[in-house]
Amino acid sequence: MFAKDIYVARRRALLEKMAQTAPQGKRGIALFVGNVEAAAQYKDNAYKFRQDSSWLYYFGLDEPRYAAIIDLDDASETIFADDVEIDDIIWMGPQPTVASKAALVGVGNTASYGSLSLAVTKALAQGRNIHFLPPSRYYNTMKLASLVGIPEENVGKVAPIAEDGGRHASEELVKAVISMRLIKEECEIEQLDDAGALGQEMHTVARDSIRIGIIEQEIVGKMEACVLSKGWGVSFPTILTQHGETLHNHLHDKVIEPGKLMVIDAGAENNMHYASDFTRTYPTSGKFTKKQRDIYQIVCDCNELAFKMTKPGITYQDIHLAVAKLMLEDLRSLDIVRGNLDNMVAEGIAGLFQPHGLGHNMGLDVHDMEDLGENLVGYDPDQKRSSQLGLGSLRMARRLVPGHVITDEPGIYFIPALIEKWKAEKRDKGFVNYSRLESYYDFGGIRLEDDVLVTADGARRTGPNRLPILPDDVESAMSS
Amino acid sequence: MFAKDIYVARRRALLEKMAQTAPQGKRGIALFVGNVEAAAQYKDNAYKFRQDSSWLYYFGLDEPRYAAIIDLDDASETIFADDVEIDDIIWMGPQPTVASKAALVGVGNTASYGSLSLAVTKALAQGRNIHFLPPSRYYNTMKLASLVGIPEENVGKVAPIAEDGGRHASEELVKAVISMRLIKEECEIEQLDDAGALGQEMHTVARDSIRIGIIEQEIVGKMEACVLSKGWGVSFPTILTQHGETLHNHLHDKVIEPGKLMVIDAGAENNMHYASDFTRTYPTSGKFTKKQRDIYQIVCDCNELAFKMTKPGITYQDIHLAVAKLMLEDLRSLDIVRGNLDNMVAEGIAGLFQPHGLGHNMGLDVHDMEDLGENLVGYDPDQKRSSQLGLGSLRMARRLVPGHVITDEPGIYFIPALIEKWKAEKRDKGFVNYSRLESYYDFGGIRLEDDVLVTADGARRTGPNRLPILPDDVESAMSS
Repeated sequence: MFAKDIYVARRRALLEKMAQTAPQGKRGIALFVGNVEAAAQYKDNAYKFRQDSSWLYYFGLDEPRYAAIIDLDDASETIFADDVEIDDIIWMGPQPTVASKAALVGVGNTASYGSLSLAVTKALAQGRNIHFLPPSRYYNTMKLASLVGIPEENVGKVAPIAEDGGRHASEELVKAVISMRLIKEECEIEQLDDAGALGQEMHTVARDSIRIGIIEQEIVGKMEACVLSKGWGVSFPTILTQHGETLHNHLHDKVIEPGKLMVIDAGAENNMHYASDFTRTYPTSGKFTKKQRDIYQIVCDCNELAFKMTKPGITYQDIHLAVAKLMLEDLRSLDIVRGNLDNMVAEGIAGLFQPHGLGHNMGLDVHDMEDLGENLVGYDPDQKRSSQLGLGSLRMARRLVPGHVITDEPGIYFIPALIEKWKAEKRDKGFVNYSRLESYYDFGGIRLEDDVLVTADGARRTGPNRLPILPDDVESAMSS
Repeated sequence: MFAKDIYVARRRALLEKMAQTAPQGKRGIALFVGNVEAAAQYKDNAYKFRQDSSWLYYFGLDEPRYAAIIDLDDASETIFADDVEIDDIIWMGPQPTVASKAALVGVGNTASYGSLSLAVTKALAQGRNIHFLPPSRYYNTMKLASLVGIPEENVGKVAPIAEDGGRHASEELVKAVISMRLIKEECEIEQLDDAGALGQEMHTVARDSIRIGIIEQEIVGKMEACVLSKGWGVSFPTILTQHGETLHNHLHDKVIEPGKLMVIDAGAENNMHYASDFTRTYPTSGKFTKKQRDIYQIVCDCNELAFKMTKPGITYQDIHLAVAKLMLEDLRSLDIVRGNLDNMVAEGIAGLFQPHGLGHNMGLDVHDMEDLGENLVGYDPDQKRSSQLGLGSLRMARRLVPGHVITDEPGIYFIPALIEKWKAEKRDKGFVNYSRLESYYDFGGIRLEDDVLVTADGARRTGPNRLPILPDDVESAMSS
């Protein structure tokens, strides 16, 4: 946990932001429901507990079945949770009281978890606004629906509370929280570097474990060991595949074969729950073929270009488009695409090869605050999200400011199903050389990803030991 | 996955059992809702997928968002799930169809996931019984409530459908499923042995990793690596603690200190989702003190007695009580308790030292079928559950039959809060020598656990390589 003052200051800042949404006496309450245990098999056999990220940000307490109310009119704060009973002490050992834990994050009032519904009912009876964030989990959906007395399908809908008094999640609260969590504090940057160190260690273990003939799962196990020994665990399910063209592949049942490209996209969540997220692509045999190296070098150059351009004042959308242009230029030199570069960029031709965005925000979530609304998180009010494949998947488009932490993750994939679709629909407007592209149907994919902090005058990569990325460096790391 | 015939035979057997609950035409449908992904952080960042165990048992398909209906009157079967779209193929690669997957488990009819609600609505409109199992997860609770049109709080209530037509979970279906899953088939025993092998490997890694001065979490990470490299993962959150008296301790943040006892209670779930569950207790310094060895030997003898007694025909409750008697006899020889053994057993004095039961059923869940109802799973119709501390927590009391797989896990703990409570309430009826007991307040606890299959004429332990358990063997394993 951070020092008490951090949480007190964050809640004070939140209160000030919410004060701008309505005059005093008309603001209502902000309701935060933390996570409970999530059953893996039966109810008492739970997955490893993961607290809600916004709860962690404002209230820090990393335990299940906590909730809180901040009164936006009189600034009072109450944490709702239950002290343990004698029966619990037998099973769990002596536990500090809820009051003593609340004091660690600067909250003076506590009440039982059960009394939360009374507090909300009272606020409702007084006609006060109930501000809450759209929940990520089914329990929180059920709990919020029950507390506020609304249908479950409304709980995740985000709209301004001012309009109808709050029969849904609060856009005012969402925006206030995003504006804070998006800009990382010094103490958070330290944690992101720490998670970066762990992620880099995990990737090093992975790289050193690649052997022809073993099952992919063996490597995944070693990576998890590394992060579980020092951190909370993986920040998302590890992608480790010899079919990099399959972007969301969480099976690890294949034997490692010679001559393939292995994409490893994985990150660590440290014990403070900050995330890292790195991708490297390795030749399973230890050496790239000429064909592999040509594509690899393009992705590597795109990764470097994005990093060099990253600084306050430019939008990440512009960087995405600059990367798309460089990628197309290099693919043109391989005769995979043909024609005018700017026209190809405008037509979104790069989306055929990189059907995802250049990057996303990172923090307590590896896709930071994704459930608060991708557009509210990743787009400035004057930006509109594209509908193009690739650019349309860009999660972070905003004009950069110091304190943003984002991923830089260009990729090139040859996805036969997608290529055939474009060909059939003439979606490429004649820019694609399909006869050349056919020879890449068994190529797979390449992605290269670092995590980047926007600084006062530029950017730096997080994590102390950047993973080798230049093709020669990768080959030499694999042979040592 | 098992061969198709296994699943076909299981569903046929289930159909026959359900046929006994009502005449043809009055039986209704059995509705099975598999698990969906469970969010860890935001919705798209899910915990590692774990399918519902009863779904796995009858339908085998290990993927999210599957459901099925078995028509108990005409014996037709339908699986409800969605084929992937082109967009999904881009992200997930080409996928076999739902129909081809259903064929793998012998189900001929498939329909979209969305059409499940139509099918249930139709059955409801026809006044048919809807049999379903009480769900473990919040999603399944919400989904079943919505499908059947009942309040969420009714979904988990188990009662005979015959009584009111089924505005709750079906006791008939619960009983039929329990009667089948309780007796392990040959193919399941192979899997339990496989999970046992992995669990034993995991425990060996743990034992070999104990070093004074390291953080407990380091060992936990290595254990997870071991199981994730070859299996699904841990079968429950690992307990690894120098405070064995704290029965449910999932924190691993302590430095390993000399002279302590370390309880490691952990198991593996293999890729077919069968569980193992073993406990060993190690002296952190590699050698037991005299005081530690005396208590350790008692627990070891209790473990052996339970195993020796395990055979068809005896109840596990009687074995629990025999173990309690031996434990009290040995504690009496240490002058920790005093008095008549049978009277002490009758008064439940053993519960002060072992406030849990001797064991539980195991299978696809490490506490097999716990959410179907502990008493329905673990007690014969003629057995009544005790309210005594310890015996009252016995999860498996039944008369043993071949095919039962159970844990044998006696333990002795010195829990100051519990001892003080008994002393204050004179709960011990004068049998406890508190002045002697005080010297054990910093002792901790010891538990020793194996998994046991009831055979035709006795029992055998599952897993190929039993972990060293005799105190000399433990010390010698730790020194090698």
